Amino acid sequence: MQALFFEHELHLVNTYPRPQLIPGEAVIEPNLIGICNTDVEIMRGYMGFRGVLGHEFVGTVVECDDTAWIGQRVVGEINAACRTCPVCLRGDVSHCPNRTTLGIYQRDGVMAEAFLLPIACLLPVPAAIPDEAAVFVEPLAAALEIIQQAHIRPTERLAVVGDGKLGSLIVQVLRLLGCDLTLVGRHPERWSLFQRQGIRCIHTDEITETGFDLVVDCTGQPGGLDTARRLVRPRGRMILKSTFHADTQLNLSMVVVDEVSLIGSRCGPFAPALRLLERGLIETAPLISGRFPLSEGLQAFEAAHGQLKILLEP
Amino acid sequence: MQALFFEHELHLVNTYPRPQLIPGEAVIEPNLIGICNTDVEIMRGYMGFRGVLGHEFVGTVVECDDTAWIGQRVVGEINAACRTCPVCLRGDVSHCPNRTTLGIYQRDGVMAEAFLLPIACLLPVPAAIPDEAAVFVEPLAAALEIIQQAHIRPTERLAVVGDGKLGSLIVQVLRLLGCDLTLVGRHPERWSLFQRQGIRCIHTDEITETGFDLVVDCTGQPGGLDTARRLVRPRGRMILKSTFHADTQLNLSMVVVDEVSLIGSRCGPFAPALRLLERGLIETAPLISGRFPLSEGLQAFEAAHGQLKILLEP
Repeated sequence: MQALFFEHELHLVNTYPRPQLIPGEAVIEPNLIGICNTDVEIMRGYMGFRGVLGHEFVGTVVECDDTAWIGQRVVGEINAACRTCPVCLRGDVSHCPNRTTLGIYQRDGVMAEAFLLPIACLLPVPAAIPDEAAVFVEPLAAALEIIQQAHIRPTERLAVVGDGKLGSLIVQVLRLLGCDLTLVGRHPERWSLFQRQGIRCIHTDEITETGFDLVVDCTGQPGGLDTARRLVRPRGRMILKSTFHADTQLNLSMVVVDEVSLIGSRCGPFAPALRLLERGLIETAPLISGRFPLSEGLQAFEAAHGQLKILLEP
Repeated sequence: MQALFFEHELHLVNTYPRPQLIPGEAVIEPNLIGICNTDVEIMRGYMGFRGVLGHEFVGTVVECDDTAWIGQRVVGEINAACRTCPVCLRGDVSHCPNRTTLGIYQRDGVMAEAFLLPIACLLPVPAAIPDEAAVFVEPLAAALEIIQQAHIRPTERLAVVGDGKLGSLIVQVLRLLGCDLTLVGRHPERWSLFQRQGIRCIHTDEITETGFDLVVDCTGQPGGLDTARRLVRPRGRMILKSTFHADTQLNLSMVVVDEVSLIGSRCGPFAPALRLLERGLIETAPLISGRFPLSEGLQAFEAAHGQLKILLEP
C-alpha cells in the first residue's frame, strides 16, 4: 500500500506492507489525515522516530475481531497504553511507560492507506460531525487538556501566544469560559475568525499589555516562552504546549522570584472534543489551508510551512 | 413614581418617592426588569425584606456626579459593599458584612421607575447585546459562579437538577466546557432548546442513571437536594444554588460516609456574563415567557408561577 515513511527524511512508498490484524486492535482506513507541527518536528529529529508518520485522522474500521466496529467511522486516542501497569491503573493511560504512540513512538502512523490502533483507543464519530471537522478532534482534545488540568476562572485575563494550528483551537476553547482573552501572534491575516468570536488579537511585536493571570505558549518556537514569560503576572500560570526538537532556556530564578507556575500540557480527552464539535461550538472549516491526495504527501509537507491545517486524503 | 413595594404583601404604589442622588451612586431608570425566584421567596418571608422588590435589570443612568455615566446603558452587581472592610479588601466584596443588596436586603430594588446603585457596581452594556439579553446578566453571572468556584473538568459527568430560570442558564454555561451533561427536570415542554444544544434531558421521576461526578441543585425546592444527593457519586461534588425560605434537611452522615463535597454558590461575576452574551454563546430569547408593563406588576407575579422569565417594563 501507499505510505509516507520517515527515516532520516520523508519518503512516499508505494509498496509498504499493509498492516495485519492483531487481537485487541483494529485495521483502520483513514478518510482524512491532518498534518501537525509535531510531524514537522519529528522530521527534524524529535523523538528519534522511524516509521509511517501521522497521528491526526478520522477513518473507518475495516478489520476487527469485534465485528460491531466494522464499518464504524472513528477517531482515536494516539497513546496505545498497556492498561495493566500502575500508571494505567490509576487512570493516567496517556502517561503509560509502556505505551507506543501513533506515528510518534514505536508505532506506525496514519499517513497510509491503512493502519492499526487498539480498540480501547477508538471513539465512534457522531453522524452530525463531518470528516472535515472530526479530523480536528486530536488537536482539539489537546486544547481541552488545558482546562482538564487547570481551574481557569471566568474572571481571569488570559493570553494565548501563537496563532497557529493549535493556538487557533485553544483560543476557541478558552473563549467558551467567558474569560477576557487575547491572542498574540504573527499572522494578522488569520485573525478575522477570532475577532468575530470576541477574541482580542495583537501582534507579538506590538505587545503593550502585560500582567495576564494565565498565558499559554503554543508557538512551537523557543521564543514563545520568552514572550509568555513577559506577559504573565507575578503568581500567574504559564501553560506550556510547545514541543520541539531543540533545547530551550528559561530563567528559572525569575520564575521563582515571581512565583510563576509552569504547567506542561500534552494530549487531552477525546470525548469532550467530540461533544464540542457536535454542539457546533468550534469552527474548523476556516482553519483548513489546503487538501492533497496522499500520493502528493511530500508536496503537502512543503506547502504546510506557514499554513494552518493541511489535510491528506488516501 | 410607580413602584412595586413589598411589606407583608406586594403593593403597586403610584406615589413612591423618587430616589435622590447621593455621592458615589447613580440614579438609574430600568429599561427591562426580570422576575427572579428570589423575589417570590422574599414574598414568602426570605430575608425579612421590606421595600421596593427586584434586582435583575438593564437600565440607563440618568443622574450621576460623574457625568461620563449619564445616558450609559448599564447592568449592575446587586451587592453594594463598603469596600473598606477586611472582607472587601481581600476581594470578596459580594460577602461584605456591611453590604446592602438591591431589592433583597436594606436597599430598594429595581421594580420602579428609578432606583439607586453605587457606581462601583455598574458595568456598561456593549451595543451588540439587546436589552432582552442584557436583563439576563445577573442570573447568568450566578450560573458562571459555579465555574468560578469549582474546577470542572471536560471529562466529568454533570447533572443539573432543575429546569427552571436558573437551571436554563446553568446548563448553557456548563455545556461550553465540553462535559457530558444531563438536565433533570419536570418541564419537558422546555427541553427542545437544550436538546438542540446537545444536553440530555430526563424527567425527575424517570431517573435511572446515577454516579454523576458533579450535581447542581437549582430547583429552588427542598426536594431538589434529595434528588441531587441520589445522583452524585461517592467523592463527588454537589453545588447548592437554591435559596428558599424554609428549613431543609440533609442526611449529613451519608455525605460523610460517601465523602461528598457540598459547595454553596450565590452571586457571580458580571463581566464574563457580558462576554458570553456578546459572543453569542447563550440563548436567552427562548427563556422569555412573558412581558408586562410595570403597572401590571401584580398580574405579572401571578403569571410568573411555573413559567420561565417574566419581564417588566416601566
